[in-house]
Amino acid sequence: MIYKNYPMVSRVIFGRGSFNQLDEILASKRKGRNAPFIFYVDDVFKGNHWLTSRIPLSYKDKIIYIPTEEEPKTSQIDKLVEDIILEFSELPSGIIGIGGGIVMDIAKAVSLMLTNPGESKDYQGWDLIKNPAIYHVGVPTISGTGAEVSRTTILTGPDRKLGINSDYTPFDQVVLDPELTKGVPKDQWFYTGMDCFVHCVESLDGTFLNAFSQSYGEKAFELCKEIFLSDTLTEEESQDKLMMASWHGGMSIAYSQVGVAHAMSYGLSYLLGIKHGIGNCIVFDHLEEYYPEGVAMFKQMKEKHNIELPQGICAELHDDQIDIMVNVALSLEPLWENALGKNWKTKITREKLTTLYKKM
Amino acid sequence: MIYKNYPMVSRVIFGRGSFNQLDEILASKRKGRNAPFIFYVDDVFKGNHWLTSRIPLSYKDKIIYIPTEEEPKTSQIDKLVEDIILEFSELPSGIIGIGGGIVMDIAKAVSLMLTNPGESKDYQGWDLIKNPAIYHVGVPTISGTGAEVSRTTILTGPDRKLGINSDYTPFDQVVLDPELTKGVPKDQWFYTGMDCFVHCVESLDGTFLNAFSQSYGEKAFELCKEIFLSDTLTEEESQDKLMMASWHGGMSIAYSQVGVAHAMSYGLSYLLGIKHGIGNCIVFDHLEEYYPEGVAMFKQMKEKHNIELPQGICAELHDDQIDIMVNVALSLEPLWENALGKNWKTKITREKLTTLYKKM
Repeated sequence: MIYKNYPMVSRVIFGRGSFNQLDEILASKRKGRNAPFIFYVDDVFKGNHWLTSRIPLSYKDKIIYIPTEEEPKTSQIDKLVEDIILEFSELPSGIIGIGGGIVMDIAKAVSLMLTNPGESKDYQGWDLIKNPAIYHVGVPTISGTGAEVSRTTILTGPDRKLGINSDYTPFDQVVLDPELTKGVPKDQWFYTGMDCFVHCVESLDGTFLNAFSQSYGEKAFELCKEIFLSDTLTEEESQDKLMMASWHGGMSIAYSQVGVAHAMSYGLSYLLGIKHGIGNCIVFDHLEEYYPEGVAMFKQMKEKHNIELPQGICAELHDDQIDIMVNVALSLEPLWENALGKNWKTKITREKLTTLYKKM
Repeated sequence: MIYKNYPMVSRVIFGRGSFNQLDEILASKRKGRNAPFIFYVDDVFKGNHWLTSRIPLSYKDKIIYIPTEEEPKTSQIDKLVEDIILEFSELPSGIIGIGGGIVMDIAKAVSLMLTNPGESKDYQGWDLIKNPAIYHVGVPTISGTGAEVSRTTILTGPDRKLGINSDYTPFDQVVLDPELTKGVPKDQWFYTGMDCFVHCVESLDGTFLNAFSQSYGEKAFELCKEIFLSDTLTEEESQDKLMMASWHGGMSIAYSQVGVAHAMSYGLSYLLGIKHGIGNCIVFDHLEEYYPEGVAMFKQMKEKHNIELPQGICAELHDDQIDIMVNVALSLEPLWENALGKNWKTKITREKLTTLYKKM
């Protein structure tokens, strides 16, 4: 058996207000006045002085606001890279992503594509990246995706939704400041938190699990239970703990994989542009058969927080549209193998997936 | 408030048999045929073909067996560094420590002192190291110390027992192969495992704790309870989980500190040469007043595994010898502040420490 040699985030700072230390952190990484820091920032923060006034800008540094209605596309990455190359005479000193999974994945992908030739779609897959990325920093402002700690950056390309998985993908620096999550709307808080919860259920229930991933997954799962089902936490404690749940949940994927919910959610996302967090929730809600305890707990959480999920989103779809989603879902072979074992092809059929999608 | 920007281990591989991948891992790090890899190996493995035949030696690579009756000394580090400099024309490609806390700390310290001038005693303290270390790899063969993940390397110098704490101290690579711990004698397994358990109790009970360290500490604590108090695990599961407990326990120190047991154990170690694991156990057994629940659980674990701790080791000591231990213990100010709060000096007295030591 060959084990993965997992690349970790090089540095992590944790604490309420630690975002104030970004200036000092970046100072030692500046390569010169013509090598700017590029800050990709979730455009929900446009005009939010509390956050933006603390982004340390010098010389040619630049803030670029990122709309987050849609998940990142390979064409978007290629355009952002081209913009940087056209505007600046030198490669950036660093790329900083301040936002959720979308913005962090954009920061990771751009930092990789600045040093690797060609188009980003050519690198969707495993270990296709040849050159180290530009120095890149992740600053999550919402918790749950695990993008801050993972070795992938998930992109929708012309052919598929698939990550650029590589040893160079993880951030060189992560700033975990739970205070930055204070303004997250409740629905979004829930959907993104559930991304972590579903990660953990799928990882802990999977066939790939070992003691490394299990220990991280169990901790993240416990934290999610405490955050979403208990009444004992203050708002600040809940923010702190969800940030750690996301971190551990992301780490649990190191020697594991997600499963049925993620595979099917990718289908929804590819065809209908449904975002990952809510997509996972819509799918997971119908997966009692695969994850009975996890789904029961999810329904409790949903009820406790009065979350109403969209219903009937696939009701009007034609068969060929359903087929596209089934194709996308089935193409994610490692997820199915993790969920159902080596013989997964005998255990899941197109008909079964079609039936499930039609319930959503 | 200023938060620590914590340097993580760059890469980690986990799995039974993953030690076989060391060859491939090191291959890409070789700087040439005159830049050897130096393997420090616990001398308990001398003649152990099962382990040593898998150490990949090429060109001028060298195995140096390390006796582990005593904990590492600054003079020992300086001698090991001098030996390398005298024997080889180039700096090593890497330093690999295969063993427990002693051997891993030696590997870390030598890798730092090869690139930083002067004597290692001059670097005991916090952030005194100026230059990055030589590439260094940790391969634990016993679980519990957390040395595989920490940013310190604890050395006994002429004046004190204190770590070289720096951003350059953590390993570039860690190989977590639980199978390597299969031959550990039961007493040593218990003492070193308890190092982790005591870490967690002290860290979770401490005033420095935040959600980051808490989440790691809680997981390590839960794993220790399962390993040392339940009867549900196979031997392999127990080995796997203890290796992860050590890892998480070490990470929990990132934003925390150890406490009373470690401070007092350093005194025992400095004066009497008592090793860290057993020293912690001897001290912790008498700390009901500070850690009532933790000590009660420790006594249960001790009983379950029929561990008999040495008694009366301080009975024959003179007052000036006790004074030396009290001085060493009290010099570790961050440990006391973590354990007892900012006003710790009003809460612990020399008399109290003397009374405690005399019970041991």
